[in-house]
Amino acid sequence: MNDQRIPHLHAIVLAGGSGTRFWPLSRELSPKQFVSIFGGVSLITRAVTRIAGLAEPGGVHVLTNERLADELGNHLKAQASLEGVVIDYLAEPTPRNTAPAIALAAAYLARLDPEAVMVVLPSDHLIEDGAVWDRTMRLAVDLATQGRLVTIGLEPTHAETGYGYIRAGAPIAGAERDGVSGHEVERFVEKPDRAAAEAFLAEGGYLWNSGMLVARADVVLRELDAAGEKAATPESAVAGAIAAAAREIGALPPAEWIMPAARERFAALPAVPFDKAALEVSEVVAVVPTDMPWSDVGSLLALERLAEPDERGNVLVGNVTDIDSEDTIVYSADRLVATLGLTDLVVVDTSDATLIARKDRAQDVRLIVDALKAAGAPEVVQNRSSLRPWGSWTMLLVGEGFQVKTIDVLPGCRLSLQSHAHRSEHWIVIEGHAKVEIDGDVFEVGANESKYVPLGAKHRLTNDGETLLRVVEVAVGDYLGEDDITRYQDDWAR
Amino acid sequence: MNDQRIPHLHAIVLAGGSGTRFWPLSRELSPKQFVSIFGGVSLITRAVTRIAGLAEPGGVHVLTNERLADELGNHLKAQASLEGVVIDYLAEPTPRNTAPAIALAAAYLARLDPEAVMVVLPSDHLIEDGAVWDRTMRLAVDLATQGRLVTIGLEPTHAETGYGYIRAGAPIAGAERDGVSGHEVERFVEKPDRAAAEAFLAEGGYLWNSGMLVARADVVLRELDAAGEKAATPESAVAGAIAAAAREIGALPPAEWIMPAARERFAALPAVPFDKAALEVSEVVAVVPTDMPWSDVGSLLALERLAEPDERGNVLVGNVTDIDSEDTIVYSADRLVATLGLTDLVVVDTSDATLIARKDRAQDVRLIVDALKAAGAPEVVQNRSSLRPWGSWTMLLVGEGFQVKTIDVLPGCRLSLQSHAHRSEHWIVIEGHAKVEIDGDVFEVGANESKYVPLGAKHRLTNDGETLLRVVEVAVGDYLGEDDITRYQDDWAR
Repeated sequence: MNDQRIPHLHAIVLAGGSGTRFWPLSRELSPKQFVSIFGGVSLITRAVTRIAGLAEPGGVHVLTNERLADELGNHLKAQASLEGVVIDYLAEPTPRNTAPAIALAAAYLARLDPEAVMVVLPSDHLIEDGAVWDRTMRLAVDLATQGRLVTIGLEPTHAETGYGYIRAGAPIAGAERDGVSGHEVERFVEKPDRAAAEAFLAEGGYLWNSGMLVARADVVLRELDAAGEKAATPESAVAGAIAAAAREIGALPPAEWIMPAARERFAALPAVPFDKAALEVSEVVAVVPTDMPWSDVGSLLALERLAEPDERGNVLVGNVTDIDSEDTIVYSADRLVATLGLTDLVVVDTSDATLIARKDRAQDVRLIVDALKAAGAPEVVQNRSSLRPWGSWTMLLVGEGFQVKTIDVLPGCRLSLQSHAHRSEHWIVIEGHAKVEIDGDVFEVGANESKYVPLGAKHRLTNDGETLLRVVEVAVGDYLGEDDITRYQDDWAR
Repeated sequence: MNDQRIPHLHAIVLAGGSGTRFWPLSRELSPKQFVSIFGGVSLITRAVTRIAGLAEPGGVHVLTNERLADELGNHLKAQASLEGVVIDYLAEPTPRNTAPAIALAAAYLARLDPEAVMVVLPSDHLIEDGAVWDRTMRLAVDLATQGRLVTIGLEPTHAETGYGYIRAGAPIAGAERDGVSGHEVERFVEKPDRAAAEAFLAEGGYLWNSGMLVARADVVLRELDAAGEKAATPESAVAGAIAAAAREIGALPPAEWIMPAARERFAALPAVPFDKAALEVSEVVAVVPTDMPWSDVGSLLALERLAEPDERGNVLVGNVTDIDSEDTIVYSADRLVATLGLTDLVVVDTSDATLIARKDRAQDVRLIVDALKAAGAPEVVQNRSSLRPWGSWTMLLVGEGFQVKTIDVLPGCRLSLQSHAHRSEHWIVIEGHAKVEIDGDVFEVGANESKYVPLGAKHRLTNDGETLLRVVEVAVGDYLGEDDITRYQDDWAR
């Protein structure tokens, strides 16, 4: 793969997200980019894998927030396709839309490598084709190297009203390669109404704005400065201030970005999108049209892509039994869902929550999430399963004074050396082999054997075998929250 | 309560049922009469409790089938309102509709007590009022003692097309008591269409046929004989043969009813309803009209009774979050269900299955059950929880080579002395105190302690405390079916 890499190419993978539009498949601690139902791996895994083969070694940077950074690390570490890929996790000080985020990333990269070309990629889009992707990226990088701000425009397949559009202009001389060509941008168009979208489709030359950007890091900052000076629009008038703050904060080590000083500086920036702050007023913007299959997975209706519809237009995925429904999507992660005579609905079933919505209200799932958040529902925060750097756990039952989990520990991994002030733990090994340390003593525990961890004991669970270690844990105590943990040593420095 | 009892009164509680129309709340091994959501106790508990105060001691007979008899015993034993009530469980040889079943019960009771008056009660109806019930029953018994076949007719509250009707005739002289009166029956009417039902309601004098019957056992047999002789209709022409077979089989001890000889004899009988075989042609039939609140809980739409509708006509019960739905019923047993913009649906969520149906298709839930049965789905057979004579268990996870359950043992109860050929068991006591016997050794196991039961060991779990014993069981083995059990001693002779 090394000969495929493009020198100075750095990926900035945007991975914030609040987990609202794809609930109950997405959660606050497991937002849309973690959803792993399209082709079996998560959207962010696909995004990172896609760019990791092109970026220079160490050139994959994931820009997220403080709360999600650990979850992302746990998640991406578990992905086979990313084995050996070194990922640089950056937590932005606070969410301020894409102009401040991209400016900060540019400032950071420009110091790392003055010749850095950055590819800014959303992590929650679904892109299906590898070959077209490669050709598109390589041409975009060519143009970026020449000083352009390069956007990627998708050939529209229908009159979509949910995306912004880019009106492509004249071809750029010499910007053609492997059947892909670069164009000037005539103008950016906000999300259109139905009639306008249909006119765009009929007229041709309009492309969906994918939100992807390819540019030299120094050009990004320079164009922000220029936009601020020109001040042609209210949103671009603030671009210079954004670039200035980004240069300041980007000069700090990333760990300091979330300290109070940087956070306050960043929080004071206007929350504007990069398109408005720079692209719409820049004179060096270009667009590379492409017809690769793409979706922003903007709502649960994207589940339609999971299977061919049946003869009544239903897409039924998982353990689903239907009679006489029409144009309905039913996705079940594992439980049985039976449907009878439904029309134009979307049903999503997960182990702890079920959503049933009219299809044309799919965008309003956020209202459900808002209501649940207001009620303190745990189902908006996390799934019943949680990835950890050493493996994963799944909650089976939260009972009165006890809870039951399965714990999977990867070969060669161990949990932290820890103790709990409020619970004892009973571990029953189901498969694999465990080394259990309790107050300094070490026990070998094989399949169908168990071990008791008394309240307060310093203990550690290690998989010293070569296969998965699976344990059932029964915790007993008056308080069972994940935060009752004191760590004495941790391979992941938590 | 003893002074409330009516001498010679015997209840025949009809408790077969296939668990189809109320799925997923009902299952094959836990049919509609087990459903405990109306007022917190099951429909059959309500039915048996209602009649147990009136019947003579030992006069409560539950007529069911072989497969359900144990489940019913486990279920009713656990009901506080039935403490001290002796119940006689009778398994009919095979299901042949109500004429053979009632005839057999009559033959059985007539031998037990030549003066027996039988009250035949469906076990899956919902009746809300105690005082009216009592007055209605007492008058019906008076009439039955005088040789009448007495039906109970409900004053209709709306133009229902799902029930048969009884057209009441002239009052029976002297048949009045506490404001309740008996009437001749002018005619029985099959389920009407909408127009006819509306006409009945407008005209008055039409009653819903409740399916309840009060009659002397010998009169039931005599009237079947008479109907057979008169042979006025095809269904009544076979009534004499039904009575003859019932007398033969009813002379056997009930345990022999399910032996091949009796079963074949019974299976050969025509499967006709008692209404058609006898009531419609009898000259001694009477009806007692009553206005007690009643429902046959004929479909999931009966869930509407669980709560007052909100301002948009929704009935939302359990952990339900709704936005903008209308005229929709959502029942959730424990999981979170979120609904958005639905209209005229019924949603029922249980721990292992969710049903979503258009309200006007509620009767077709049986089609879903048929499809699931054909596919071998375990979700049509039983719930994740199961009552036992000693308490109950709930399955948390059926994994590869292991399963996890919670087990609740009632104070003073113990499981059978047993062994398993294919699994070991790890027991962790969560609350209460256990006595654990393993191959003859006895261990005291308190809360937060555990015990291991090796494969093949003769073992027994006893709650020798005065509070509930709750245990988490992790079973490990290559086969985990409930039928891998050898019992050496059992307090319930299983």
